[in-house]
Amino acid sequence: MDINCDMGESYGQFKIGNDKNIFPYISSCNIACGFHGGDPLHIEQTIQQAIRYNLRIGAHPSYPDLVGFGRRKMVLSAAELRANIGYQVAAIKGMVESLGGQLSYVKPHGALYNEMAIHQTEALPVIEAIQRIDKKLSLMGLANSPLATFAQQQGIPFIAEAFADRQYNDQGQLMPRSQENAVITTPSLAVEQVVNIIEHQKVKTPKGEFTIQAQSICIHGDNPAAPAILKALKKVL
Amino acid sequence: MDINCDMGESYGQFKIGNDKNIFPYISSCNIACGFHGGDPLHIEQTIQQAIRYNLRIGAHPSYPDLVGFGRRKMVLSAAELRANIGYQVAAIKGMVESLGGQLSYVKPHGALYNEMAIHQTEALPVIEAIQRIDKKLSLMGLANSPLATFAQQQGIPFIAEAFADRQYNDQGQLMPRSQENAVITTPSLAVEQVVNIIEHQKVKTPKGEFTIQAQSICIHGDNPAAPAILKALKKVL
Amino acid sequence: MDINCDMGESYGQFKIGNDKNIFPYISSCNIACGFHGGDPLHIEQTIQQAIRYNLRIGAHPSYPDLVGFGRRKMVLSAAELRANIGYQVAAIKGMVESLGGQLSYVKPHGALYNEMAIHQTEALPVIEAIQRIDKKLSLMGLANSPLATFAQQQGIPFIAEAFADRQYNDQGQLMPRSQENAVITTPSLAVEQVVNIIEHQKVKTPKGEFTIQAQSICIHGDNPAAPAILKALKKVL
Amino acid sequence: MDINCDMGESYGQFKIGNDKNIFPYISSCNIACGFHGGDPLHIEQTIQQAIRYNLRIGAHPSYPDLVGFGRRKMVLSAAELRANIGYQVAAIKGMVESLGGQLSYVKPHGALYNEMAIHQTEALPVIEAIQRIDKKLSLMGLANSPLATFAQQQGIPFIAEAFADRQYNDQGQLMPRSQENAVITTPSLAVEQVVNIIEHQKVKTPKGEFTIQAQSICIHGDNPAAPAILKALKKVL
Repeated sequence: MDINCDMGESYGQFKIGNDKNIFPYISSCNIACGFHGGDPLHIEQTIQQAIRYNLRIGAHPSYPDLVGFGRRKMVLSAAELRANIGYQVAAIKGMVESLGGQLSYVKPHGALYNEMAIHQTEALPVIEAIQRIDKKLSLMGLANSPLATFAQQQGIPFIAEAFADRQYNDQGQLMPRSQENAVITTPSLAVEQVVNIIEHQKVKTPKGEFTIQAQSICIHGDNPAAPAILKALKKVL
Repeated sequence: MDINCDMGESYGQFKIGNDKNIFPYISSCNIACGFHGGDPLHIEQTIQQAIRYNLRIGAHPSYPDLVGFGRRKMVLSAAELRANIGYQVAAIKGMVESLGGQLSYVKPHGALYNEMAIHQTEALPVIEAIQRIDKKLSLMGLANSPLATFAQQQGIPFIAEAFADRQYNDQGQLMPRSQENAVITTPSLAVEQVVNIIEHQKVKTPKGEFTIQAQSICIHGDNPAAPAILKALKKVL
Repeated sequence: MDINCDMGESYGQFKIGNDKNIFPYISSCNIACGFHGGDPLHIEQTIQQAIRYNLRIGAHPSYPDLVGFGRRKMVLSAAELRANIGYQVAAIKGMVESLGGQLSYVKPHGALYNEMAIHQTEALPVIEAIQRIDKKLSLMGLANSPLATFAQQQGIPFIAEAFADRQYNDQGQLMPRSQENAVITTPSLAVEQVVNIIEHQKVKTPKGEFTIQAQSICIHGDNPAAPAILKALKKVL
Repeated sequence: MDINCDMGESYGQFKIGNDKNIFPYISSCNIACGFHGGDPLHIEQTIQQAIRYNLRIGAHPSYPDLVGFGRRKMVLSAAELRANIGYQVAAIKGMVESLGGQLSYVKPHGALYNEMAIHQTEALPVIEAIQRIDKKLSLMGLANSPLATFAQQQGIPFIAEAFADRQYNDQGQLMPRSQENAVITTPSLAVEQVVNIIEHQKVKTPKGEFTIQAQSICIHGDNPAAPAILKALKKVL
């Protein structure tokens, strides 16, 4: 099973995540593009590490909201959204290629990720922007969401992802970060959730469970427990 | 003679320049990359116009200084500078190609332009960043400057430019913008300077003149007189 | 009747509005605080002019969204919103007093203005922030809106404002800027609307009219017709 | 002896420093103003903690350079610098007073701190800005520097500070951060330096020592060893 993580989100002196200890344990690397985190130097260094570890590389674009870390919904016109995504994906693709690597997919970040999972008005401009930049790029997004359908309709390859370290609610959606326990920090619980997804295609929720088909599992790099969860996962997988 | 202009520098609601009235009169278009001006939507729209008018397209990267419009010297490490330029050039190149155009050259902006003209410490990381992104890209920079030599040594094609609307001092350098009359706003004077450059390879200074070899002439888009100067130039050339 | 205008919104080299030609015609000056526009130097110069013209001075705080010019709704927690407003109002109040003037009121900007007019969740943190900074400050906001009630309940003096250069719809609300004709640029139409407000406490809408009680009339500084409207108004008032 | 620390430098999701573990050990708190770090909510929370711990409160303004963390020299005109400092100090002063505290001093940050220590062109606009905001504010700056003289000439009370966790060179200046060992991370070495300053008014350098008169000792909040150094200091002092 593919394991992906958001990387390169540090901004100048502001460090986020624990990238150094995460690289050895993942197979796909979502690289921040500068709009919610990631200055050019951290981006470049992250790309170099991703190439060194032979990881699949994705761009991780966001709404333009540094102080909000891209976690606040913003109302952009379709044209603005398309241009914002095009700019970010182009920047990462060009830098990856200039360093000898290859960009494989795009995984939108934060509030944009959540909006796209449900709303066609957000999903279509993003998909259009990606396809304009490179027809071979895949889109990574929320498993079991309408986005899977939008992607199919637009003809963009879709990588359905599930989360190791986020609780799902009884409706099969991610619990909002504002809710307590939304983020799983106990490695054994995260491992249990991942194993359940891989072996049984199921996720437990507070009152039940639901079926999920995932091609990739995400760990959040800014989760302080990420390295411990990844080590525990490696033992099991 | 090639005429180039800095374009796409507007930022959201903040409008700079008079791009609409300038497109018909230029042959090369330097496109802002978002660090001193230019949000993704203005950048995209500028690229679309440049393609429509069949212009040669360049990226116009800058120090990261929006409030200072890239006109203040900043002290970046070589690695930071290289990454900042790589990011910006990659973003524009990818967007240009996604819209069916082709990026031909890079012309650094503002204080970075001035620093590179003289200092190898600034010039080399920029040249290295450009060459990493695309070996076929040219560098546009100040005619009669050490940069021409740096470029030759690094094997990057160099486009020497002279200015239609900037005064030169007796040392053959641009008068700093802090000096009165540094910017020429009288169309006839700008035309006279350009004609002198083209026909006699000379530029007049307060107390004399000097020899200049230029392959392109720059007009500043934020010069309110730019459209008038360009119209006057067109009649003469 | 008091005439107010948003001023000091220029940002570095990015000029917005026509402040110089507006100062002589207004009685209240809403000063940008740096979050949607207004760098410290433009803010300082605007305060100096407001004092010179003996205007009533207000702070004009915004969501933190420079590229969106504060015109996009953003989802801030109550604590974030309160702190963001406190910071901006404190900055302007301190600068005004340091230059010998006095801050009289606060008028929120853009999307925040519109949200506060209707939603208590946005209005209360802003009112609380203002009252913490200075109990004597008034709040300027949309006439005929729920905000008037929220303000009364919190005990903050309220200045109800109507617009000279914005169309109202049949529900008595401002037409969204996305709609054609939302902004009035014909001076005679703006004057007609203002005179109607002052003499008859009425505003015409596409299909009818409604009653309005206003203590101040706003002209938008970034409306290119603002100086012409203000001159025409002066003749009539 | 007064112990001061730079606090409140976190920016949204980007955490810097270890404020929670530092508050109990310091007597003066330099609060970031938003230009190199510190968003309004972190600033407000830092002020609240500083009041709770009954600390002397200072504003910690910077050049406007978030990605560079204010550690890069920037070339601002005197008017720009004055306005930038006035804005930041006013914002912090107003927020401090709105929460029931009092602003006592201003300590400039990073590259501005270093420039002011030596250059009158940087020091005077900053001092003028501070005095405009509040005549009772003190200026905190580098002990043994020309700034002490500039401050005296302008009639602003000066708090000379020495550093617990920075190496000094043989010229009595701070070693640049680019040099190895510039930052002291071994608690016993930091304690030794502080005790030497307090008891003997001396600082050791690589090849000798020099005399220093300090009224405050600074620990850097983003030094990971800061809490350990502070605990060790408390035992000794």
